Amino acid sequence: MIVSAVNPSDDGRTVKFLLKESDIPTAWYNIASDLPFPLDPPLNPQTMQPLGPADLAPLFPMELIMQEVSTAPVIDIPGEVLDAYRLYRPSPLFRARRLEKALGTTARIYYKYEGMSPVGSHKANTSIAQAYYNKREGVRRLATETGAGQWGSALAMASAMFGLECSVYMVKVSYEQKPYRKALMQAYGADVTPSPSPKTNSGRAILAKSPQSPGSLGIAISEAVEDAATHDDTKYSLGSVLNHVLLHQTVIGLEAQQQMAMAGEQPDVVIGCFGGGSNFAGLAFPFLKPALAAGKAAGRSTGSAAASVGPRIIAVEPAACPSLTRGVYSYDFGDTACIAPVAKMYTLGHDFVPAGIHAGGLRYHGAAPMVSALYHHGFIEARAVKQLATFEAATLFTRAEGILPAPESAHAIRAAIDVALEAKATGSSPAILFGLSGHGHFDLGAYQAYAAGKLEDYEHPQDEIDRALAALPKVSD
Amino acid sequence: MIVSAVNPSDDGRTVKFLLKESDIPTAWYNIASDLPFPLDPPLNPQTMQPLGPADLAPLFPMELIMQEVSTAPVIDIPGEVLDAYRLYRPSPLFRARRLEKALGTTARIYYKYEGMSPVGSHKANTSIAQAYYNKREGVRRLATETGAGQWGSALAMASAMFGLECSVYMVKVSYEQKPYRKALMQAYGADVTPSPSPKTNSGRAILAKSPQSPGSLGIAISEAVEDAATHDDTKYSLGSVLNHVLLHQTVIGLEAQQQMAMAGEQPDVVIGCFGGGSNFAGLAFPFLKPALAAGKAAGRSTGSAAASVGPRIIAVEPAACPSLTRGVYSYDFGDTACIAPVAKMYTLGHDFVPAGIHAGGLRYHGAAPMVSALYHHGFIEARAVKQLATFEAATLFTRAEGILPAPESAHAIRAAIDVALEAKATGSSPAILFGLSGHGHFDLGAYQAYAAGKLEDYEHPQDEIDRALAALPKVSD
Repeated sequence: MIVSAVNPSDDGRTVKFLLKESDIPTAWYNIASDLPFPLDPPLNPQTMQPLGPADLAPLFPMELIMQEVSTAPVIDIPGEVLDAYRLYRPSPLFRARRLEKALGTTARIYYKYEGMSPVGSHKANTSIAQAYYNKREGVRRLATETGAGQWGSALAMASAMFGLECSVYMVKVSYEQKPYRKALMQAYGADVTPSPSPKTNSGRAILAKSPQSPGSLGIAISEAVEDAATHDDTKYSLGSVLNHVLLHQTVIGLEAQQQMAMAGEQPDVVIGCFGGGSNFAGLAFPFLKPALAAGKAAGRSTGSAAASVGPRIIAVEPAACPSLTRGVYSYDFGDTACIAPVAKMYTLGHDFVPAGIHAGGLRYHGAAPMVSALYHHGFIEARAVKQLATFEAATLFTRAEGILPAPESAHAIRAAIDVALEAKATGSSPAILFGLSGHGHFDLGAYQAYAAGKLEDYEHPQDEIDRALAALPKVSD
Repeated sequence: MIVSAVNPSDDGRTVKFLLKESDIPTAWYNIASDLPFPLDPPLNPQTMQPLGPADLAPLFPMELIMQEVSTAPVIDIPGEVLDAYRLYRPSPLFRARRLEKALGTTARIYYKYEGMSPVGSHKANTSIAQAYYNKREGVRRLATETGAGQWGSALAMASAMFGLECSVYMVKVSYEQKPYRKALMQAYGADVTPSPSPKTNSGRAILAKSPQSPGSLGIAISEAVEDAATHDDTKYSLGSVLNHVLLHQTVIGLEAQQQMAMAGEQPDVVIGCFGGGSNFAGLAFPFLKPALAAGKAAGRSTGSAAASVGPRIIAVEPAACPSLTRGVYSYDFGDTACIAPVAKMYTLGHDFVPAGIHAGGLRYHGAAPMVSALYHHGFIEARAVKQLATFEAATLFTRAEGILPAPESAHAIRAAIDVALEAKATGSSPAILFGLSGHGHFDLGAYQAYAAGKLEDYEHPQDEIDRALAALPKVSD
């Protein structure tokens, strides 16, 4: 399997671990099969009773609904999905020797790079799968929302590949301020609507109350869900949070495991940036298997992250949207209009409006239920980092390694650097693996603002978070 | 060598030909060794006498000067350059099955994709080599020019990797209209100056005459050359045109040859977009070897492209900057201020100002002397395509293959599609190979304008070209 023979003593050199095409995983890893604790079911937003597959049928094709609730250990990747993955997979894993040198650290730093996909991020891993299953079940059109545009462009690409129409509700302020992402979606043939829009009841209600509303991800989700629910030929597609989305992303971690083996080691620390959770879960879940198995064998439902089997797993979120580190573990709506399913998750409240940081992909009030449960049960750690510190880390990384990271990915870089510097201070030499989820070629406006000294740090005061949390739905146990 | 076993009868599927890291070429191909005709030497711009290595020493490190005039068949790639290449090489070669299907063509279409480099284009292949040789010879700073920013960002990245300072003179209109490319260069630590600038005599002369000058590539070259010539610790670096730059790009064609062999065939047609010539030459030169050898063996200096040995080789230039198809083969200055070396090349005249098309990387009045000579002697073909037709081709390609091409690369796509459609009309089934030199993630403004119907075609009237050609220098034979 080792196609790259590099002398590990060649300090400062690029080291890339390349898989063969036949090493692309042929099945996704389903972490649900390994959980030593039960998951709280999602609820119907009207009745607040557990959702059944029939409740989800207007929104998703049956195969994805089945994946959402599956407890099978693995789920085969269909041939057509693998064919499309081959456009950009397997993705490379690098040892960041130049960064290590710049830090003077005793740690070994590895990163798994998803930025070579045609849309520049990991989002294609699930958009391709979702478009495929929808096409197979006769769906004609997909509706979705997008904030900064990363997910919208991934679904637009996959829809073009499988011959589906694609309607994207794009948060209005991004639609106006980031015309380039819109142009990318349109180049793929997608129909892009600024949200809130007059196309849906949810949109019209917001516009009636607030004609100048800049929109939000929560509102756009409401519109896309309503669009799908009210059109027979249309389904809804989500780019994060849901179990089946996290499942599709596990190709990242499964490849990374093979590549770390090529490097001749196991990571001591695995780090991913965290918004909804799909990139983080995709990298981390396969590495959680031993800790979960140990928990199951011992009849324990908790991991006590620090002392458990396997690597430390760290989710890194923005200090400006700290759902894991400052939110509560509670049932909450996934959207603003309260029409999307209700999930048990870490949340800042569905009315919470995160500060306008440039890592748009991490600005979501909630957190994937699966990741939330793992965090609640102590199998993973979380930390929040501030915006300026992430751009500082990104700039250091760019100059050392040559790759300009997406602002989202920069959160993982920040934490990886911090762990490496801690190692330097204590004289330890851990192997650190982090996920570089995408390139920053679409985010140069943010880098420009950073270079000009125009970026700010922001942490929401506690009373603001408390106000949003007060709107959590009441759920009887 | 074959790591991707794909059934060629699987119509409509992605087919990627992946090399192993050990298949990255370890030497560049030097076409100078195979030419069956003599090359006209470059001239000193003051004396109009042939240039010697000493004339070039203020501008380039000696190793690059030696490469410029070398007639060795191959030139070894230094280990440190190979190490940096491993960041993104080997690059993939794809069979465009989805595009073939969309066209209903009997042709087989392959493309070599250079967009996975950290700067999104092939330019890194030479920026890394140039930064390395400069560093090795003790240079502290590099000066260069850039138009749209593709070359400037590639040199900025390479300079950061090898610890050099990098000063980029960026055409003022691009500096103001394309702040994102500037931000990328600055993220790599480069110093970016709008040109014309008050930093140089050339810049001051232009500003005195025309304070609002929007700048041009020719002016920016003058400034960068002057900067290097007047600072002992600084050398000049050029992203195209020169022999050593074309040499470094041959890794593209050398890899593509291995990959076409994996696909089990030889291309019948090789197509590259053409501006200065580096991307075109990088892909095409290795494929010219048999035709040149046949010419040499037969004592012929001409190729008569259509009937020669090996594939048809087609350079595709913009109709708005048609140096090969409407220029003349003559000695001309490489820059506007007439301080850069004078080269025998196809040119529209150093005063020619091409229309403002979005393929900024192809807007150069001249053409690489090596490519010019091959065209003059009939070893390659050239065609010009209009802007709207290139964006139409790019959009078709994007929706079929998933990758959004750079506007420059779209010229090659347009020609590949045209050749494929000609094949459909005649019932032939050629194997077409084209170069996809970069992704279009930096060029979404152009796609936006295209989608909005705001792009135009432009062809310069003959009298405009004649006026520019009247300024060609007089050279006594």
